[in-house]
Amino acid sequence: MTRFALTVEYDGRPFMGWQRQKHGPSVQAALEEAVFAVTGERTVVHAAGRTDAGVHGLGMRAHVDIGKDIAPFRLMEALNARVRPAPVAVLDCVVVADDWHARFSCLGRGYEYRIVNRRAPLTWEAGLAWQVPQLLDAAAMAEAAAVLVGRHDFTTFRSAHCQADSPVRTLDVLSVARDGERIAVRAAARSFLHHQVRSMVGCLALVGMRRWSVDDVRVALEARDRARLGLNAPPDGLFFVSAVY
Amino acid sequence: MTRFALTVEYDGRPFMGWQRQKHGPSVQAALEEAVFAVTGERTVVHAAGRTDAGVHGLGMRAHVDIGKDIAPFRLMEALNARVRPAPVAVLDCVVVADDWHARFSCLGRGYEYRIVNRRAPLTWEAGLAWQVPQLLDAAAMAEAAAVLVGRHDFTTFRSAHCQADSPVRTLDVLSVARDGERIAVRAAARSFLHHQVRSMVGCLALVGMRRWSVDDVRVALEARDRARLGLNAPPDGLFFVSAVY
Repeated sequence: MTRFALTVEYDGRPFMGWQRQKHGPSVQAALEEAVFAVTGERTVVHAAGRTDAGVHGLGMRAHVDIGKDIAPFRLMEALNARVRPAPVAVLDCVVVADDWHARFSCLGRGYEYRIVNRRAPLTWEAGLAWQVPQLLDAAAMAEAAAVLVGRHDFTTFRSAHCQADSPVRTLDVLSVARDGERIAVRAAARSFLHHQVRSMVGCLALVGMRRWSVDDVRVALEARDRARLGLNAPPDGLFFVSAVY
Repeated sequence: MTRFALTVEYDGRPFMGWQRQKHGPSVQAALEEAVFAVTGERTVVHAAGRTDAGVHGLGMRAHVDIGKDIAPFRLMEALNARVRPAPVAVLDCVVVADDWHARFSCLGRGYEYRIVNRRAPLTWEAGLAWQVPQLLDAAAMAEAAAVLVGRHDFTTFRSAHCQADSPVRTLDVLSVARDGERIAVRAAARSFLHHQVRSMVGCLALVGMRRWSVDDVRVALEARDRARLGLNAPPDGLFFVSAVY
C-alpha cells in the first residue's frame, strides 16, 4: 500500500461540494471513481478541506492509499484521463509517508474570495466570482478585516451546521486588495469554521457598502451570536488556494 | 436618432463569433435582439472587431443608433437585463457623435492571448485559455515576438478567408509574460488581419517548445506564404481587450 498526496484543482460549479453525497456529484466521488478506473480499487480520497457546493479548488491537497504498483507521474496522468469530463485536475502527485494525512497533518489553509464590483452581470466569470453592484470601499473593508485577524471566538461567523468542537480560531491573514473592478479577499489560518470565510467576506462587503461601520464588525464578533451575522457571501467567489504541511 | 457607444464583455464559448450568422448564435445577434426588446427597433450593432467563434471580449467597443429617447445609463441597464441568459454584458454606454464609428474610427486594437502551460487539463478555465503540456521557454518566445513587431507583410499569418485589401500591418506590441504556469501574450496594432494574433501565437508556441528557432519565425514572416505557418493557436485563449479612438 502506497500513500499518494495529490494537489487538485476543480471548478466547483457542477458539484454539491468536495464531500461524497448520496444525491449529487461531488469532487471526492469524481476522484474516487477515477482511482477505481485506474486501479480497480475502492478507496477514500481524503482532502485538506471539505469545500461547500459551488466553492472552487485551485490547490486543494488530498491523499489516497493505493495497492497497485504505479509511479506517481503515471497515476497523475491516468487520473486526469479518467476523471474527465468532470472539471477536476490533478496538478501534482507525490508519494508520502503512511502517517501523512491531508486533513490532520495540515498546518495551514489559504482561501481567496473574488468579488467583481460592477453593475453589469458577469459573463465568463459567472459562478467564479461574486458580483456586487454597489461601489465597495476597499480601504474600509481592509480596516474591518484587521478587526477579525487574531485569536477569537468566531461563533458569529460559523454555520449552524459547523461540527467543530470549538468556535475559537486564530486568523493569521485577512487582506483586501482592489485591482480595478476586482477585489480579492485573502484569508489564512491553521483551520477555519464552516462558512467562516464566506461569513467574514459578507460582513466586509457590508462595510464596503457603508451599511456597516468597522465597529459594527467588532460588535458582531464580540456578540458570539450567529444571529448577528450581517451577510453570508455566496459560494461562487470562494477558492481553496493552498494547504501548508 | 442618437448614436450610443457601448463597451461590451462576452464569453465567446457559446457563440459562432461576433458577427450575425444564419445558423447559430452570435454576440451581435444577442445584442441586436436585446436592443429590439428594449426599443422595438431593428438595428445593427457595429463592433470594433469581428471576433471568431470561441474568442472572448473583455472590452469590445460597439455602436448602435437608437430613435427612442433613452438615457445611456438606462439603455445599459435595460440591455443587460434583456440580453440574458446570453453571456454578454454592457460595461459602459455613452452618447457619441453621429460620425463616430466603432470600426472605422478605431485607431488601435489590443488583444491578450492566455496560455496555461501544464500537463493537467483545465477545469474552470476550459475554453478560456490554451492548455499547452510541453514546457514553454517564455524568454525564447519573447525574442521571437520581437521579430514580428513593426511594419511587415503578414501574409504568412493571415487566414485564407481574410478580406483585407493589404496584408501589410504595423504591429506595435507583441509581448510575452510568464506568471507561474500562465503565459500572457499581448498584441496591439491599429488593425489586425484575420487570424493574425492566433497565427502569431501558434508560431511563438513552437519557439517556446523549441521546435522552431527564432530564425524560423523570421523566415516564415519573410516567406509571405500561408503554407509556411507553423501552427494556428486555438480560439479559446484569445480575448479582445480594448479599442482606442
